[in-house]
Amino acid sequence: MGLEALAMDQKGYRRGSFQSSTSDEDMLEIAGASVDLSMADDDPPLDREMGGFSTYNGGGMNGKSTMMDFLEEPLPGVGTYEDFNTIDWVREKSRDRDRHREITNRSKESTWALLHSVSDAFSGWLLMLFIGLLAGSLAGLIDISAHWMTDLKEGVCLAGFWFNHEHCCWKSNTTFTDRDKCPEWKSWSQLILGYGEGAFAYILNYFMYVVWALMFSLLAVLLVKGFAPYACGSGIPEIKTILSGFIIRGYLGKWTLVIKTITLVLAVSSGLSLGKEGPLVHVACCCGNILCHLFTKYRKNEAKRREVLSAAAAAGVSVAFGAPIGGVLFSLEEVSYYFPLKTLWRSFFAALVAAFTLRSINPFGNSRLVLFYVEFHMPWHLLELVPFILLGIFGGLWGAFFIRSNIAWCRRRKTTRLGKYPVLEVFVVTAITAILAFPNEYTRMSTSELISELFNDCGILDSSKLCEYVNDFNSTKGDDLPDRAAGPGVYTAMWQLALALIMKVFITIFTFGMKVPSGLFIPSMAVGAIAGRLLGVAVEQLAFYHHDWAIFSGWCSQGADCITPGLYAMVGAAACLGGVTRMTVSLVVIMFELTGGLEYIVPLMAAAMTSKWVADAIGREGIYDAHIRLNGYPFLEAKEEFSHKTRAMDVMRPRKNDPPLTVITQDSMTVEDVETIVTKTTYSGYPVVVSRASQRLVGFVLRRDLIISIENARKKQDGIVSTSIICFTDYCPPLPPSSPSVLKLRSILDLSPFTVTDETPMEIVVDIFRKLGLRQCLVTHNGKLLGIITKKDVLKHIAQMANQDPESILFN
Amino acid sequence: MGLEALAMDQKGYRRGSFQSSTSDEDMLEIAGASVDLSMADDDPPLDREMGGFSTYNGGGMNGKSTMMDFLEEPLPGVGTYEDFNTIDWVREKSRDRDRHREITNRSKESTWALLHSVSDAFSGWLLMLFIGLLAGSLAGLIDISAHWMTDLKEGVCLAGFWFNHEHCCWKSNTTFTDRDKCPEWKSWSQLILGYGEGAFAYILNYFMYVVWALMFSLLAVLLVKGFAPYACGSGIPEIKTILSGFIIRGYLGKWTLVIKTITLVLAVSSGLSLGKEGPLVHVACCCGNILCHLFTKYRKNEAKRREVLSAAAAAGVSVAFGAPIGGVLFSLEEVSYYFPLKTLWRSFFAALVAAFTLRSINPFGNSRLVLFYVEFHMPWHLLELVPFILLGIFGGLWGAFFIRSNIAWCRRRKTTRLGKYPVLEVFVVTAITAILAFPNEYTRMSTSELISELFNDCGILDSSKLCEYVNDFNSTKGDDLPDRAAGPGVYTAMWQLALALIMKVFITIFTFGMKVPSGLFIPSMAVGAIAGRLLGVAVEQLAFYHHDWAIFSGWCSQGADCITPGLYAMVGAAACLGGVTRMTVSLVVIMFELTGGLEYIVPLMAAAMTSKWVADAIGREGIYDAHIRLNGYPFLEAKEEFSHKTRAMDVMRPRKNDPPLTVITQDSMTVEDVETIVTKTTYSGYPVVVSRASQRLVGFVLRRDLIISIENARKKQDGIVSTSIICFTDYCPPLPPSSPSVLKLRSILDLSPFTVTDETPMEIVVDIFRKLGLRQCLVTHNGKLLGIITKKDVLKHIAQMANQDPESILFN
Repeated sequence: MGLEALAMDQKGYRRGSFQSSTSDEDMLEIAGASVDLSMADDDPPLDREMGGFSTYNGGGMNGKSTMMDFLEEPLPGVGTYEDFNTIDWVREKSRDRDRHREITNRSKESTWALLHSVSDAFSGWLLMLFIGLLAGSLAGLIDISAHWMTDLKEGVCLAGFWFNHEHCCWKSNTTFTDRDKCPEWKSWSQLILGYGEGAFAYILNYFMYVVWALMFSLLAVLLVKGFAPYACGSGIPEIKTILSGFIIRGYLGKWTLVIKTITLVLAVSSGLSLGKEGPLVHVACCCGNILCHLFTKYRKNEAKRREVLSAAAAAGVSVAFGAPIGGVLFSLEEVSYYFPLKTLWRSFFAALVAAFTLRSINPFGNSRLVLFYVEFHMPWHLLELVPFILLGIFGGLWGAFFIRSNIAWCRRRKTTRLGKYPVLEVFVVTAITAILAFPNEYTRMSTSELISELFNDCGILDSSKLCEYVNDFNSTKGDDLPDRAAGPGVYTAMWQLALALIMKVFITIFTFGMKVPSGLFIPSMAVGAIAGRLLGVAVEQLAFYHHDWAIFSGWCSQGADCITPGLYAMVGAAACLGGVTRMTVSLVVIMFELTGGLEYIVPLMAAAMTSKWVADAIGREGIYDAHIRLNGYPFLEAKEEFSHKTRAMDVMRPRKNDPPLTVITQDSMTVEDVETIVTKTTYSGYPVVVSRASQRLVGFVLRRDLIISIENARKKQDGIVSTSIICFTDYCPPLPPSSPSVLKLRSILDLSPFTVTDETPMEIVVDIFRKLGLRQCLVTHNGKLLGIITKKDVLKHIAQMANQDPESILFN
Repeated sequence: MGLEALAMDQKGYRRGSFQSSTSDEDMLEIAGASVDLSMADDDPPLDREMGGFSTYNGGGMNGKSTMMDFLEEPLPGVGTYEDFNTIDWVREKSRDRDRHREITNRSKESTWALLHSVSDAFSGWLLMLFIGLLAGSLAGLIDISAHWMTDLKEGVCLAGFWFNHEHCCWKSNTTFTDRDKCPEWKSWSQLILGYGEGAFAYILNYFMYVVWALMFSLLAVLLVKGFAPYACGSGIPEIKTILSGFIIRGYLGKWTLVIKTITLVLAVSSGLSLGKEGPLVHVACCCGNILCHLFTKYRKNEAKRREVLSAAAAAGVSVAFGAPIGGVLFSLEEVSYYFPLKTLWRSFFAALVAAFTLRSINPFGNSRLVLFYVEFHMPWHLLELVPFILLGIFGGLWGAFFIRSNIAWCRRRKTTRLGKYPVLEVFVVTAITAILAFPNEYTRMSTSELISELFNDCGILDSSKLCEYVNDFNSTKGDDLPDRAAGPGVYTAMWQLALALIMKVFITIFTFGMKVPSGLFIPSMAVGAIAGRLLGVAVEQLAFYHHDWAIFSGWCSQGADCITPGLYAMVGAAACLGGVTRMTVSLVVIMFELTGGLEYIVPLMAAAMTSKWVADAIGREGIYDAHIRLNGYPFLEAKEEFSHKTRAMDVMRPRKNDPPLTVITQDSMTVEDVETIVTKTTYSGYPVVVSRASQRLVGFVLRRDLIISIENARKKQDGIVSTSIICFTDYCPPLPPSSPSVLKLRSILDLSPFTVTDETPMEIVVDIFRKLGLRQCLVTHNGKLLGIITKKDVLKHIAQMANQDPESILFN
């Protein structure tokens, strides 16, 4: 089942709409075959569940004593959800509380039960430990493989083909002048032709570079297409949706994990303009989901499992950047939906374990935890806030531009024939990227290396082109270099960087959303870092040549070191990342963890804030939210306030001219009546009322439970025939002796459905749905049942109010 | 109105109980005079509010169109709350949304309105800036004054009496050998007797030390008692309660701010075993509250104001420790109740501004932001986790012991005559502290200096006693000192530290809760740091003398530097602070910001986790929660799960044998009937039903609105007499022509009260109250109104289920 099935081809799919009052004809086309998911949802596999009465009291509020029965003897399939459905948070949390209560009560009975209770309490921590270890190890593996394969595009190590360029030269015994040019490392032309210089050698290297890139990316897209369609993209929009309570089976499964890990390495190595940070979050969440199966507590409860996934997301960011605190805040701010304090603490633990596992593996060979370690020495001046804010504006503009263009391109991919040829698309984009990238050394190197180099502050011994300043050793004191005139190397680098910037800006738009694992963090940061470095060098040169200007007087005298271009690169990176993702605190904290100094938080924050404001002024949504909306996931955004003045009666079904709500009466319908209702409608549940005339609400009953119970009673209970009265009350009314026996179904009735009055403002209804995680809510007027609002209705209404077509938003 | 009035003397006070079904006879004794707060609550000052109909739709859900009326023409007093009442979060948030909607709609009309809309959007940021600046400045002022006054107890500077010891010696032009012994600084004996050595000089210095300490603390307690009784204590329990929605007028007022700032300096300088960190949070919250008055948006809305206070709390911790990220997480984890993401970002901004303001003031004279800056060089070994976990256990035991003893002592203070003599109590405790403290140099110095010294890793040039090791310069390489044998200085220091530990452990129990500002962070950290340093030195000596033992082999050979006693002190401090406050992530992050290295997070985390588990096993509550419960604040804990199997019907009023619920019918009661109900009962609101017979719920009306409306109608509306029918419906039933005119009161009816069914499990009801911030909730059965549950009922029920006497818990 492919993401394209979910996102591209089908007309719609069943989501949170636990019950709706319109007949659901939505069909989900999966891998070319049309499957009616509403059938899958509404018609339970009866043969599986004939074992007894289903005592599951789904729907609104519950957790009553009847719950305990099936805790003791769980029926297969009861309490689980179908694919593409929304979970009921209230019910899941109730179930967990029941389970916990049960264990606590038993723990007083025997020592063994006490031990069980203790182990249950610690299982969460153990799970976090495992997730941290696994996520850290996988991240290490990915880092090492990607590093090696990236270098493979340029050459091979004679001392052992499994060494990357850097390792190869470490292993070298011979002396060599240039840091990276050891004799053991052979470029492809050296290996094949025997020499590395000259036009032909260059062309050969160029050719090999493009060929390897194409090989890697084709392998990646074929693996994704063939084995795990969910492995493509960054995964963060889908994880946000899953954490909000949606179910996408297999999205966090073992196949996705395996394929995503492999294809991520391939995609990164192919030199495409993508990063591994977002996909690493997906990989970590897969680890979390798979490891949940070790513990019943988490395997069987969708709400508890989501707590684990939140923590896993934190571990993912933690290993992606080496920033455990930033990871936790990212999970809190960006990804998670329900984030209790207990999860905060556990996420932190998982993030730390993951970070330290990664450090023990030491993939960068420098004992550093962080991806881009930087150390700046110079404080910044208040006036520098002006260029920092300019970078913020650039970041915001770039973010808004990127989101618009990328969404437009993805929409085109979905709606035109373009989407039918994902392999060809990847081939073309890779070819263009590789061909454009090779001639420019700043695009030829891997993007994270590029960012590292841009962040770097030039020391005395730096040999890179970016540090080719005109040296004046007379004024040098110690390691602190004063501002100097740029040499020819710097000017060349500036041109190359400007070209690299243009290329990255455009190619990233087409890359993000292809059928390979692709993260956005690194390309966004690269764009910002290039812009920042360019601006930084410009300001530096301005200050060097014009230190007598009024704006420089007092803080930037001749021969002083006032401007750090690396800091500008870092600020630019933060601004662009902020513009694209609209992260705020987590972004600044991740950057803070990279530099390790509180000193630079203010510039970072100024840029991030400006960037967010500018981007928000152009378009409210971050890239992840935009993709959620593009794909029509049923995500009830917790950040945005619903600010319209509609009321519950405007949203509820039935609408004015619709037929009245289908209800079941508590003690006057026969088995046949109910069976007719169930057959004629496709709703997932029905309100139960005192009588049709009074419409006073008694409770809510699920279609699934109703069918199972009647089916079972007809088979096993004597005297239940079509004319038997179904009775949902405690004491059924006396019947004439000749009538058939009564079918008592109180046990399947949810006696505490959520209700609101018809006059309730929608802003409050939205708040209730969001905070309590409801699936549906009944609407009453003066105590009489009027209608029902499902999560689907709420989402449709929000889309409608935002002037978006509700149908195209939710079912595309 | 004193905190003692709130916490000690009275039998009870009216809290969140917006309506209860028992007659409230609770009296609040304030400053000796008995005031019936329920009267103050239930009988609005009518003369103030006669101007028109109150269109305020308080109670459950609202935010309807009628809301807009009073937005345009606010009536005095409407929409505000009485003292010691709980706010209705739903209503406040609705009101803010209405206000926001209004401004947004208007912004399209004119440029000025657009500017107003923009300035409204930015006012939150501006407010944060002001809070940061003010909190940072105050913290700087407090730091500088406390430093100076602490030194004043020992002597005075001849170069200028306003210099503290350290500054005095910086100003000195003469050369002197010992770091701190410059000729300009005169101890009291030097000043008075002319010499500083000898028994008599020692006794004189001792005497002056005690006298100054007594003077400071007496001044502090008298100021607190005389001017701002709310200024005592740490303030964090009360701030938690306020943030959860309770109103304590004046607790965050300007008098509290002024007096708390002054007395905090006095209390810290007096040498009592207390810290300034908790009170700084209170000071910052006062700043936040006062600055809210600058902006209508925050002044008039209790929910928005609480968002600001959350951010202010973050700024407070930020300046207390120089840890902005830790501050935000502290606010999130420990203090705040409602913490939307927008607040997270703003808190961070406020915390940063505050931290940088403090750094610009530079109170420690070392350009460091943090209170205890430490830099360790040596990595730790995995085996060292054993002593770290031991420190965690110690921290947990100390935390649990401290909480129990302190609560027992505070209870005794409240219930016996002890509480009547706060000044005497402070006098005695200060005298004992000062007398015991002077002879021991580790208790004589200020607690934060002590902690600094304990955290410090001994360098080559360190002259303190703690660093008097037997030097072996042959094995020294650079600045890294190997483990060495302890010299006599270390042994003396060990004994003194052990004595200091015992003293601190006991004196802190009696100090926290006295009528002076007193924080707990520093004393707790001191206890832990001493214990940690003792253990650290012990392990170090063990490793030095027994490096051939199996446990040391492989990582601690002879002459290696394996053990850093300062790290043990830091881990111990974290463990003890964790045991007392039960902070987790914020604690680790604060400690991380102090050291600035991810390296030591794992030891800190291991200790904090162990400490929390050990302390939780002995008693669930942290010190702040324990004080909240002791003082009977209506705080609905968001962290604890309610895990009992009771249902709404078990909690609601009326109970089984009570008289039925007082209701008003929608169109059949006369003005006289309603006035009788209002006179005979004291409830704050009444449900409105279709008819007494059907009991079908229509809405909820507030007593306050009812009285105002009737009063107003009788005066201004023709034909309204006692026999007039009151009608809450849209269309009133036709009456015979002879009858008096009908009083239409639909506008004051809340048409969307929250309801649950009687079968709803209490765990879900508690969840709803917590997440939505309700004040009351109506209970129905089959659409008929059965009863009501107020926040008070919920709190009482939780106390009852936890085997605590509900009355003594909530009204003491």
